[in-house]
Amino acid sequence: MKRNSTRYKRIEHLTTIYEGRVKFNEVDSLGIVWHGHYISFFEEGREYFGRKHGLSYLDIKANNYTAPIVNVHCDYKASLKFGDTFTVKTFILDCPSSKLILEYEIYNPTGELMCEGRTVQVFLDKNGNLALYSPDFFTKWKNKVNFFSDSR
Amino acid sequence: MKRNSTRYKRIEHLTTIYEGRVKFNEVDSLGIVWHGHYISFFEEGREYFGRKHGLSYLDIKANNYTAPIVNVHCDYKASLKFGDTFTVKTFILDCPSSKLILEYEIYNPTGELMCEGRTVQVFLDKNGNLALYSPDFFTKWKNKVNFFSDSR
Amino acid sequence: MKRNSTRYKRIEHLTTIYEGRVKFNEVDSLGIVWHGHYISFFEEGREYFGRKHGLSYLDIKANNYTAPIVNVHCDYKASLKFGDTFTVKTFILDCPSSKLILEYEIYNPTGELMCEGRTVQVFLDKNGNLALYSPDFFTKWKNKVNFFSDSR
Amino acid sequence: MKRNSTRYKRIEHLTTIYEGRVKFNEVDSLGIVWHGHYISFFEEGREYFGRKHGLSYLDIKANNYTAPIVNVHCDYKASLKFGDTFTVKTFILDCPSSKLILEYEIYNPTGELMCEGRTVQVFLDKNGNLALYSPDFFTKWKNKVNFFSDSR
Repeated sequence: MKRNSTRYKRIEHLTTIYEGRVKFNEVDSLGIVWHGHYISFFEEGREYFGRKHGLSYLDIKANNYTAPIVNVHCDYKASLKFGDTFTVKTFILDCPSSKLILEYEIYNPTGELMCEGRTVQVFLDKNGNLALYSPDFFTKWKNKVNFFSDSR
Repeated sequence: MKRNSTRYKRIEHLTTIYEGRVKFNEVDSLGIVWHGHYISFFEEGREYFGRKHGLSYLDIKANNYTAPIVNVHCDYKASLKFGDTFTVKTFILDCPSSKLILEYEIYNPTGELMCEGRTVQVFLDKNGNLALYSPDFFTKWKNKVNFFSDSR
Repeated sequence: MKRNSTRYKRIEHLTTIYEGRVKFNEVDSLGIVWHGHYISFFEEGREYFGRKHGLSYLDIKANNYTAPIVNVHCDYKASLKFGDTFTVKTFILDCPSSKLILEYEIYNPTGELMCEGRTVQVFLDKNGNLALYSPDFFTKWKNKVNFFSDSR
Repeated sequence: MKRNSTRYKRIEHLTTIYEGRVKFNEVDSLGIVWHGHYISFFEEGREYFGRKHGLSYLDIKANNYTAPIVNVHCDYKASLKFGDTFTVKTFILDCPSSKLILEYEIYNPTGELMCEGRTVQVFLDKNGNLALYSPDFFTKWKNKVNFFSDSR
């Protein structure tokens, strides 16, 4: 994860902290959360970030765009167990291109890092065409949330 | 399950047998398939039935209908484990009203019954209105597959 | 659902209300929550009930029992959509035998009933043997929560 | 994905091809497979590879090891839809250390690449200790499948 973290800075004042709870059917036969479910926890963190800052799936859709995920990465450090609550810290990166890059850190109840990851999203207009330049609504959003205030 | 089985006969010659395999992420911390996944196995059986007989989700959609599930029931007898293959026997019931009633039996590799269940579906037209009478395409389908040949 | 509700009374003072939120990956191509996920919502309601009243999966396990689900039923009335929050009302039934019978009602944010269902659980001891009589810990639990106060 | 592919060669003669089918409940409200489910498809490919070559989850467990995933990466190119069948090509990399590195390519029915990814697994013994050197059973396995025949 270091590689890209040094490339783009996190816009710290936008970071959100989401609280979740491990469900029985998310735990595998080893008694720990199945690794694929963390991708879903990232999404819970991402949607919480979106609801908090006005950039949720439904906000993007209301602007006639979708933001499909073009890649996802996850590094596992330790394992959540059934009954654990967890927190997802969601960070947005200061990426200049027409992309939405988010990083995630998931912690267990005692504050240990369970995993960290990153998703990259692009914007498609209503015809499914890739937005090569930042869509207007996204530029406006960046201004509204003072995206650049702590980054430049 | 006896209750309704006596009410409507199964149209035996349409019964299908689908073969599946338990996935690692379907097994819970007790080492057995989480009970909710059998609802998904029913759907695998149902879609296999549909592909075999021309009544799949996509076939119904091509006729401008959807067939939402209005209730589901499942009786659990024993548990599939990781690594098990399984078979889903899917039966259609001889129901005269505008409904699609299917029954399912799921067996493990040694032929033991793991669970049995039933789903009831209704038909909605493209405006979302309930079809009170059997849609034309469904009546035609029944004739095509000799629905009534072994039932009356 | 009426059939059994008349057989066993709900112990009203133990009813719990759990609040959840529909996740993006729980919504199907029709834009509504896939029917099988309500089984998971029932489980979220059931575990919340358990945490609230000391009868969760982990509580039962601490007493050297498991409580596998032997049947589940769900009647669908209307559909939750992405972005919806929902509430699960979980009711315990006054069943005299060595069973745990819970009923569920799921409501959308405007208070409309989306679905209702029921699960039946039995108790297995640590050797996997069915408890024909109510396990001690369950009898004690019933006394502790005044199970019989509004039922007899 | 290029970065690591050049670092470690694929052991071509061990590559497996698994055939799957998109399920209704794997498709999201955009009509395409939800991105997180590809992690599960990787696992289906990995387990198929394991069953084919004697290195499945159960084989590893029989040798008193587990092989937890320490990171996963997925690059999305295009989207599978409901009703699509798909193939998962699973490649093992010629990694000298005590790790299991697999790469995956998922294709739609017309042979287009939908996504590619990679998982890295380590070995833990029955006490949960990390195997710093390749476990005996893994070295034996490599010899048995002629791991080095086309790589050195």
